[in-house]
Amino acid sequence: LHLSDVSLASLELGPYSHFMQKEIHEQPRALSDTIEQILAQGFGASLFDGDASILQGVKSVQIIACGTSFYAGSVARYWVESLTGLPCAVEIASEYRYREAVASPDNLIVTISQSGETLDTMEALKYAKSLGQNRTLSICNVRESALPRFSAAVFYTKAGAEIGVASTKAFTTQLVALFALTVTLAKLNGRLTPEAEAGYLDALRHLPGSVQHALNLEPQIKAWSDRFAAKDHALFLGRGVHYPIAMEGALKLKEITYIHAEAYPAGELKHGPLALVDENMPVVVIAPNDALLEKVKSNMQEVRARGGEIFVFADLDSHFHDSEGVHVIRTPRHVGILSPIVHAVPVQLLAYHTALSRGTDVDKPRNLAKSVTVE
Amino acid sequence: LHLSDVSLASLELGPYSHFMQKEIHEQPRALSDTIEQILAQGFGASLFDGDASILQGVKSVQIIACGTSFYAGSVARYWVESLTGLPCAVEIASEYRYREAVASPDNLIVTISQSGETLDTMEALKYAKSLGQNRTLSICNVRESALPRFSAAVFYTKAGAEIGVASTKAFTTQLVALFALTVTLAKLNGRLTPEAEAGYLDALRHLPGSVQHALNLEPQIKAWSDRFAAKDHALFLGRGVHYPIAMEGALKLKEITYIHAEAYPAGELKHGPLALVDENMPVVVIAPNDALLEKVKSNMQEVRARGGEIFVFADLDSHFHDSEGVHVIRTPRHVGILSPIVHAVPVQLLAYHTALSRGTDVDKPRNLAKSVTVE
Repeated sequence: LHLSDVSLASLELGPYSHFMQKEIHEQPRALSDTIEQILAQGFGASLFDGDASILQGVKSVQIIACGTSFYAGSVARYWVESLTGLPCAVEIASEYRYREAVASPDNLIVTISQSGETLDTMEALKYAKSLGQNRTLSICNVRESALPRFSAAVFYTKAGAEIGVASTKAFTTQLVALFALTVTLAKLNGRLTPEAEAGYLDALRHLPGSVQHALNLEPQIKAWSDRFAAKDHALFLGRGVHYPIAMEGALKLKEITYIHAEAYPAGELKHGPLALVDENMPVVVIAPNDALLEKVKSNMQEVRARGGEIFVFADLDSHFHDSEGVHVIRTPRHVGILSPIVHAVPVQLLAYHTALSRGTDVDKPRNLAKSVTVE
Repeated sequence: LHLSDVSLASLELGPYSHFMQKEIHEQPRALSDTIEQILAQGFGASLFDGDASILQGVKSVQIIACGTSFYAGSVARYWVESLTGLPCAVEIASEYRYREAVASPDNLIVTISQSGETLDTMEALKYAKSLGQNRTLSICNVRESALPRFSAAVFYTKAGAEIGVASTKAFTTQLVALFALTVTLAKLNGRLTPEAEAGYLDALRHLPGSVQHALNLEPQIKAWSDRFAAKDHALFLGRGVHYPIAMEGALKLKEITYIHAEAYPAGELKHGPLALVDENMPVVVIAPNDALLEKVKSNMQEVRARGGEIFVFADLDSHFHDSEGVHVIRTPRHVGILSPIVHAVPVQLLAYHTALSRGTDVDKPRNLAKSVTVE
């Protein structure tokens, strides 16, 4: 019996129409698999392969990545600065490698890449090491790939093979890896009480369930997607740790629907992009709590006055309801510090279903490759 | 004799059609006025009003701003890290003020605002001070405004009154102020040779002339603007210290033409936005030197294959010529470290003339205010 690659691939799809849909729905399991060893061992050096002693005495953190991995790093910056007290910077690999960066041997260099083979990220790591920075840690999904081989330590995400060009389960498991790194650094710096550690482990334990809850929103999100499919633009707004989720949502929409979606931190809307808003520019708001909603309400009124429709992902326990031109989908009850992981799911589903409505090639978007191994 | 405000304003326009055009053309003089005291006194604490002793012993730099001022700060980050050896971060004010930032008394907090009254920037400064950071310096164009009054030291740009909502001369003079700050910090840190200082002073001396040279490109840029006016999208690419100029170019186009322009660091194109490119998405490349041009050439081929037109601003001494679908305007000979200031001018002119073609209200774009004094 001989099956072509294509038929094998089809067999693997199971009940799903595309690998992207399958991979979105695999997230509770991918997250459980990645979290398993953290729950078993607690936070600490044992979570990392290689020489995790490099985590001792770290004075600052520099995260380097491209594309979706860069947005995972951007979420982590908020976590690192608030939990560890260490300054944290995140930079696009193709930028870092070509500039005169300030280097310190106490700086932890964290590179992130699903494949572990992203060329710009690898070259940035080489450059960082050439500056004498040998505390290097990579977060990858593919064992023994280039980045882990070149790093002192590595955290392997257990997302399983990711086939769709638009990254989904790799992203959310990277976030778990970055959270594990953050809490480990906090612990090594004496900034983690046993109560806080127990709380974070508990949050991780409940994460796959909350993500499943978010997946169950698929029918509601599908209903929104028809409105998006008719547009050529979209604006995604977020704030704080959810701003990178807005960026990731805009990138997903760009990649597979070819809609020109752009993300802004909500507070910047009135410093320029508000001029763009009219009836052709739907605005998506990632709004996990009432505080953000209060802040963007006046912006929303201006958006509404220009005829722009607003699509809000708000937590179940927020007090925000549908009104004329303002549509609300309630995501699971606010899950605290891991909220950006849960909020990543609805924007993946929105991009996926909008692509279906537009009839684009979801798993192989035009012009893009799964792993960018050229410059 | 009584003149209404409007007629007074018209009188002040002189030969120009709009304040924005006038202010773009005032840049050689605004820059000369801002540079004057630097040329007279050299780099050092005397350039700053207030208590400039705060610059002694600075260990890191945190720049905080909104909108166009944020892009000025983003240019400065490249300068600070390469010239002073101090780590430098730049953050949007509305983000900084609402997160748990890592604070240090040796951190220099730099806030930037044309009006000195931007609410989010002021609140971010208050927050930074509440964390015990008292080394505060503001860069403003309006004397005795809120930010300078609340900062230990201040550098006043001498752009003169800026009426157009879209900032132009305030931006380029902010860049001069940030350059003066950078070189002063390098000097205080013993990283400035007398030869280097003389070279930087010389570069500043020639800057207004190079900017005038860039202004003389107006007819060529006007010829491009008709092609842009018919589009609803644009992508701006830059790299390194010119990436923030790409961001500023995209923002200018957004603000006054309502074209959905977005900027990317050139190396990120293949990590997502390349999927967007088709004949409706012109791509503007800020390419001051051959190195960048070589890097983006393969991307350009992909852009061309999808029917996207490419508009390149390349230095006079680069070796890059027009070809099918690739249009090149030669900016002045590469001016070295101050190159982003010169490259800011063509993208201002492109936005201005595209707005004229589209018939939008250049000086008062819809939905926007000159100074954002609300949240």
